[in-house]
Amino acid sequence: MRINLARLQKDVLALGEIGRTAEGGVSRRAFTPDDLKGRAYLTDRLEAAGFTVRQDAAGNLIGRYPGQDNRLPCIMIGSHIDTVPNGGMFDGAFGVLGGLECVRSMQELCLENRHPIEVVAFAAEEGSSLGGTFGSRAMAGQIVLNELTEREKTAIDLNLQAYGLNGANLGQAKRSPESLKAFVELHVEQGGVLEELGIPIGLVLGIVGIYRYEVTVHGEANHAGSTPMSKRDDALVKAARLILALQEFTVEESDEIVGTVGMLTVQPNAINVIPGEAKFTVELRDISAWGPVMVLERLKHFAAGLGGVEFRRIAEKEPVRLHPGIQDKIRAACRNLGIEYHVMPSAAGHDAVAMSYITPTAMLFVPSRGGISHSPLEWTDWNDIEKGTEVLLHTVLAIDES
Amino acid sequence: MRINLARLQKDVLALGEIGRTAEGGVSRRAFTPDDLKGRAYLTDRLEAAGFTVRQDAAGNLIGRYPGQDNRLPCIMIGSHIDTVPNGGMFDGAFGVLGGLECVRSMQELCLENRHPIEVVAFAAEEGSSLGGTFGSRAMAGQIVLNELTEREKTAIDLNLQAYGLNGANLGQAKRSPESLKAFVELHVEQGGVLEELGIPIGLVLGIVGIYRYEVTVHGEANHAGSTPMSKRDDALVKAARLILALQEFTVEESDEIVGTVGMLTVQPNAINVIPGEAKFTVELRDISAWGPVMVLERLKHFAAGLGGVEFRRIAEKEPVRLHPGIQDKIRAACRNLGIEYHVMPSAAGHDAVAMSYITPTAMLFVPSRGGISHSPLEWTDWNDIEKGTEVLLHTVLAIDES
Repeated sequence: MRINLARLQKDVLALGEIGRTAEGGVSRRAFTPDDLKGRAYLTDRLEAAGFTVRQDAAGNLIGRYPGQDNRLPCIMIGSHIDTVPNGGMFDGAFGVLGGLECVRSMQELCLENRHPIEVVAFAAEEGSSLGGTFGSRAMAGQIVLNELTEREKTAIDLNLQAYGLNGANLGQAKRSPESLKAFVELHVEQGGVLEELGIPIGLVLGIVGIYRYEVTVHGEANHAGSTPMSKRDDALVKAARLILALQEFTVEESDEIVGTVGMLTVQPNAINVIPGEAKFTVELRDISAWGPVMVLERLKHFAAGLGGVEFRRIAEKEPVRLHPGIQDKIRAACRNLGIEYHVMPSAAGHDAVAMSYITPTAMLFVPSRGGISHSPLEWTDWNDIEKGTEVLLHTVLAIDES
Repeated sequence: MRINLARLQKDVLALGEIGRTAEGGVSRRAFTPDDLKGRAYLTDRLEAAGFTVRQDAAGNLIGRYPGQDNRLPCIMIGSHIDTVPNGGMFDGAFGVLGGLECVRSMQELCLENRHPIEVVAFAAEEGSSLGGTFGSRAMAGQIVLNELTEREKTAIDLNLQAYGLNGANLGQAKRSPESLKAFVELHVEQGGVLEELGIPIGLVLGIVGIYRYEVTVHGEANHAGSTPMSKRDDALVKAARLILALQEFTVEESDEIVGTVGMLTVQPNAINVIPGEAKFTVELRDISAWGPVMVLERLKHFAAGLGGVEFRRIAEKEPVRLHPGIQDKIRAACRNLGIEYHVMPSAAGHDAVAMSYITPTAMLFVPSRGGISHSPLEWTDWNDIEKGTEVLLHTVLAIDES
């Protein structure tokens, strides 16, 4: 049971031409004319394959392919086709077109599906004035209009007008869990782990949690000439110790957790004044909810030894575990196809996060060359595209049988 | 042989009233009306003590007190009476009025001086549009008009007009080494070393050299979520290692050398991006010319191990050693008076630096409470003022005898 790579390739390249930039990238930001052209292309391809296409109240573009028993909940596959400015042609689009290709291959192979299959292109997955993963969050019922500010509601209204939709109806996009059997998202990794390992499939264990803190280190600003080393309370030296401690504690905690100090500023920031204050951010991402707690506890303990260090939580997003049952089906599909896979977390958020709240959800990665994404340089080898789509096909068939 | 503290105190307090600020500080910036009032007060006090007062072509205010043999080179003592905005009343003024008090005490004690004695208030010691230590540099012949830009010459012209002087004559301020036997400057420490040690006199070994570098650390900016710790080239982590290495190497080198990272910036400085570049300054100050070389060599070697680190020299000012012969006389004066002294470098520049290029020069410190200067909180206890002035008196007498 093989998919038709040439056909899939043709779709990916054709969609990649829509919004093509001078630098060789793709700009199809959500709600722009090029996004509309992309959606028209996708609609055409879905209809040509026997799908019935509609858009829901959030602008999610949904093609439904009937099953033997249309009273059964549907198997949903897909991702998004909007892009960042000057992004790559695989990010999102591959998951949608790969889903379509699975169904076309099933037709050719005369494999009949019991459950209806829906191929979805979620609206506005990339960051916009609506925040990221807008469409999937709306489908999962996570956007509640009367909890929003007027400003947020206006932004939704204005954007959805591009799709001929009325923001006031957004609630209708909420999908009942009973209507869904499972959701599977195929995506390029956007990191370099799979390429490094030489493994074509990433089985995504979950989406990492993100924990952000602002750390303020107080010292004593003083003359850099007349203050001996032994009399100093240098905020930047203490910050440097904290940065290296974070590095050490993170590396010791596990292979998965990452800790980053991305921003740092010094006061008064003068060449001849000992820094009196240093402020920096700490971001921890981990598939385990415990890892960041452990690292932060150690860091706070270390900071207490230095003195004058305050931690302020900026943001905290819990990690999301994807569905072990579907993961087992992916494992089996890989084994049957003789394709190696690597179990890994996803460091970036995806539509699968929101969907995991309403239906058993799984996610598959294929390698990104050089780990590059959101760039005209984004690339995935076609034979990895083929393998990923075949694993998806076998997974969908296994779900359909269960 | 004691000086008259009450008389000196009266002068310091009276001069400290000129330019007094609401916050209790003193503002007598060079060339301002309050500076002129201060100079008028000083002129009056010098003349009352039998000095002949003149200003040289740089605006240095010089009182000359005759000796038994006026063909001998003069012993010069003094400092400056201009201040920073809202500074303290001792900084500079003490060295000038203390010099005057020495001569008045000699008169009372019927101690006749062989060499003429000059008490000087150098013009514009504090930073101005002319740079710091303007008057002493002019006296040492370090300001050469035809090496200056038009802008610099105009600044000199405009400022010297306040003293009724013509900038074009600045060269006449240059003093021949033959006309000088020695220069001794008495000053408040402006640091906390003497107070900490509980010692009233600092014998200044020299003025520290200042070495400044800009260090650029190159890393690889990357996604803070999807880049595992082991795959990172984090410019800020490398910078943190360098900051701590500088700290370690400086502390190991000697008790005198100080090393400071005062400025640091990160690129792109985003919470979720691994820093691709960190730029920071390194300032080393030491009385030894070798210390900074050694520390910098070690730091460069350490940086080579990290990779991607560039050093650029911004400024380099060699340390200045003051005159060992006069230092011996100060040691002897302290021993005779039973006053403890501490041999130390000066971390800040003073008029003594320029003067050391044309005549044997020495410098004496008295404690600054809390190490504070350039502030309304500046304070030196009166009994330390007395001890410092007495050591100066004995030193001048010893120079006069030699």
